[in-house]
Order: sequence, then C-alpha cells, then structure tokens
Amino acid sequence: MSAPTSTLVLLRHGESDWNAKNLFTGWVDVALTEKGEGEARRGGELMREAGILPDVVHTSLLRRAISTTGLALDACDRHWIPVHRSWRLNERHYGALQGKNKKQTLEQYGEEQFMQWRRSFDVPPPPIDDADEFSQAGDPRYADLGDDMPRTECLKDVIERFLPYWESAVVPDLRAGKVTLVAAHGNSLRALVKHLDGIGDDEIAGLNIPTGMPLVYELDADLSPTVPGGRYLDPDAAEAAAAAVASQGR
Amino acid sequence: MSAPTSTLVLLRHGESDWNAKNLFTGWVDVALTEKGEGEARRGGELMREAGILPDVVHTSLLRRAISTTGLALDACDRHWIPVHRSWRLNERHYGALQGKNKKQTLEQYGEEQFMQWRRSFDVPPPPIDDADEFSQAGDPRYADLGDDMPRTECLKDVIERFLPYWESAVVPDLRAGKVTLVAAHGNSLRALVKHLDGIGDDEIAGLNIPTGMPLVYELDADLSPTVPGGRYLDPDAAEAAAAAVASQGR
Repeated sequence: MSAPTSTLVLLRHGESDWNAKNLFTGWVDVALTEKGEGEARRGGELMREAGILPDVVHTSLLRRAISTTGLALDACDRHWIPVHRSWRLNERHYGALQGKNKKQTLEQYGEEQFMQWRRSFDVPPPPIDDADEFSQAGDPRYADLGDDMPRTECLKDVIERFLPYWESAVVPDLRAGKVTLVAAHGNSLRALVKHLDGIGDDEIAGLNIPTGMPLVYELDADLSPTVPGGRYLDPDAAEAAAAAVASQGR
Repeated sequence: MSAPTSTLVLLRHGESDWNAKNLFTGWVDVALTEKGEGEARRGGELMREAGILPDVVHTSLLRRAISTTGLALDACDRHWIPVHRSWRLNERHYGALQGKNKKQTLEQYGEEQFMQWRRSFDVPPPPIDDADEFSQAGDPRYADLGDDMPRTECLKDVIERFLPYWESAVVPDLRAGKVTLVAAHGNSLRALVKHLDGIGDDEIAGLNIPTGMPLVYELDADLSPTVPGGRYLDPDAAEAAAAAVASQGR
C-alpha cells in the first residue's frame, strides 16, 4: 500500500484587461478580458475531465482571481465548495510601476533596470505614493493591515507574506485530505512553487506559470511533491503558453 | 444618541432557467438566465448607489444564488468580502414536484391541491424518489447530511433548518456590526422575514419577495426590525415585481 498523498491544484487567473494592454498591474483590481473568462472556464473543464475536483479553494482579494475561481468552479460543478480569500495570495505589489506600460518602462529605464524590477529576487521597484491613482491606500479591503500594507514588493516579500497563510490555512486542508485549489497570480504561485520544489532564489525568476492551466501536485506526507514541478492537465498548451509569458514586455 | 443598529440586506436570486420555463425547481441546481444575471448586477448597483456595502455574505449551495452573489458583489466592488455557503439557505425542497411544469401540475391536481403544495405552511409535497432524475441523492455537496438530507419540505421545515444557521452564523456577524448580505431563495428568505417580522403561519404564504431587489432591514439591539418589513432599495420596481411573482403558475 502506498503512502497517502494530498492533491494540490494551482490555477493562475486568465488574461486581464491590463495583461492585454501590457501594463504593470500588481494590486490594481482589473477585470478579466473575455479571453481570460474563457481561459478560466477551460481550466475548470480540464479539472472536470481529469476528475480532479476541488473540495476547497483559496484565492486572493483581487477580482481577476476571484472571477477565475468562480468561472472555473462553475465549469466543473464545484461552485458550492468553501472559498477562502486572503490578501496574502495577492499578486506581487508592483510599487510605482503599477499602471505603467511595460514596453515604455523598458525603453525608459533600459533592459537591466527593467529586468531587475521584474525578475530579481530581492530588489523591489520604488514604492508607490499613497496619492497615486493606482495606490491601494484607503481601499477598505486592506483596512485591517494598517501600516503593514505594502507599497511595493519583491518576490522575497511575496514569499514572506504568503508562507504564513500557506502554513495556517492551506496546509490544514491538505492534511485533512481535501483536494485543495489555490487560484492566484503569477508571483504568489511562483512563491508557492519555489517553496514546494525547493527552487533557488536565482532560478525562480525563470519559472513562468501560464494562465488558466491547472497545475497539479501530489504531495507526500511531508508535503513534498511526488513529481517535482507537478503536472499540467494540458501539458502541450501549458508549454506554449509559458513561452509566450516569458516574452512579455518585448 | 440613538441605539446602535445592525444592517441586514436580503437578496433573492435573479431569474433562473426554470423560472423562465415555469418548472418547480427546489434543490435542482439550474443556472441564471441572461435576464437573471442582469437582475443580479442591478441588485449590486442599487447597493452601490445606496452606499449599503456588504462586509460579509451568506448564501446557499445552489448555483443561481452563488452566481447572483458574485455578480451583485462585483457590481458594488465588494467581490472580495468573506462568503459563507450553507445548504440551510437553499430553496425549499419541492419533493416529487421538482422538474414538473407548474401549469401542468395545476391542471392535473387542481387549484386546491396545487395551492396547498405551493403555499401551505406545513404540508409538504410527496417526497422525491432517490432514483428520480431530479433527486439530489448522491450529490457530493450534501454527503455530510447523510439520511438527514430532505426529500421534500414545507415552509415549516425550511424554517426549522434555516434558524440554527441564522443563530449560529448570521447573527454573530450582525452583532459584530457587519453589514450582512443574505443572498438566497424565495422560501429561505420567506423563512427569515417571517422570523424577523413575526408574521403568522397563515399569512407568510402571501409574502412575495421579488428577484434581484435588495431588501434592507435595520435591526435594533434585540434584532427586531426598526421598520417592519424593511425597505426595498427600489420600492416601485419591487412592488411591480412582487405582483408578477404572485401570479406565477397562472
């Protein structure tokens, strides 16, 4: 008899308005595009076809992840499962870059600075001013955070605020044997994959998780992946999509 | 200084596929129509315009209430609030009538029997057979209920299974000062209104709550309505819609 495993499914939200416009989004609460809605539904259909049906879902406080969750779960008839939302699953806060065009930022600051902001492990962009139109200062959903609300984040910061939620909220569901869906964002999912697969600080930036493609991890009793990197429910589509994500901003 | 009050908002789901087809629905998990989706969004806009913004929402395990919740909250920028779902907020189980056409049922059984099933306080329709295509036997969302899962319900049964959830889950949110949304169904909301307004067993059947119209109660420290019957955010539309509901099946 093999050891019991837990099933964890990661799902990155579908294309948003600002993905389509090539803007840095971060904590700005933009909606899915029609294409993104279709990606979310397709993600749910893939789970249904694979018979991997979530018992519980954890998601962020951002509309594009919440809508993706709703559409994907509806498509696999799991719209009724318990849902937990936390700012700790939000996308990386992009600081003063929020609302800026990626191509223009690349041209303005040059390749080196641009890639450092996008992909360095521990160098955040400049903080956003509270008076900036794309700041979240005063947003009621973050009122409980007080002065702890981030004004910018690097991936290291995302990991530090994500892991306490992972341990306190997600792990208990996995330990209870629940098929657990985490529906989140490029960087909060990077933080999770880095933790699960033990990826190094310098390597994690190269990992691109495509949108709307369920990534399934079977975890052993130590919550280590039985297959490193997990498996996509639609591997060919995931590979093509990851390549496209990697070329963003060009 | 006036005594502190709590704000409770009731929202009945928008038109569903089977409302449109005039079928008894009960626990059958049908989707909203396009019209129903529009009603849900309009409900959210009315809350936004009135500045009555939910801090927490309670809803059922049925798609038409869950979708209504998502669309309404999205429309008032409260998509990120905590959501709690329970079978105790489900529509009344319509027993063997589930999936039956209302007009045909009226013709087959006659006015008296039809109205008794629809509107009597304590006479449920015949129970549904577990083998019926519209039974919920074997539905995983009710697995925890075991043999307690209803096969039919009268309004009295709905009240008996709804009130424990009201006391244990909704009242604590109200006591904590949260603007609390209950997004549910014709009969689970009837159960709640009967409780709040102290309506008699014989009178409650005459109360028709229109779809997609937020009904706001301000509750005093004893959780009694400061204004009996609450107030609709769009009173003229609510009155017209209630009259239309009352004539269903004719």
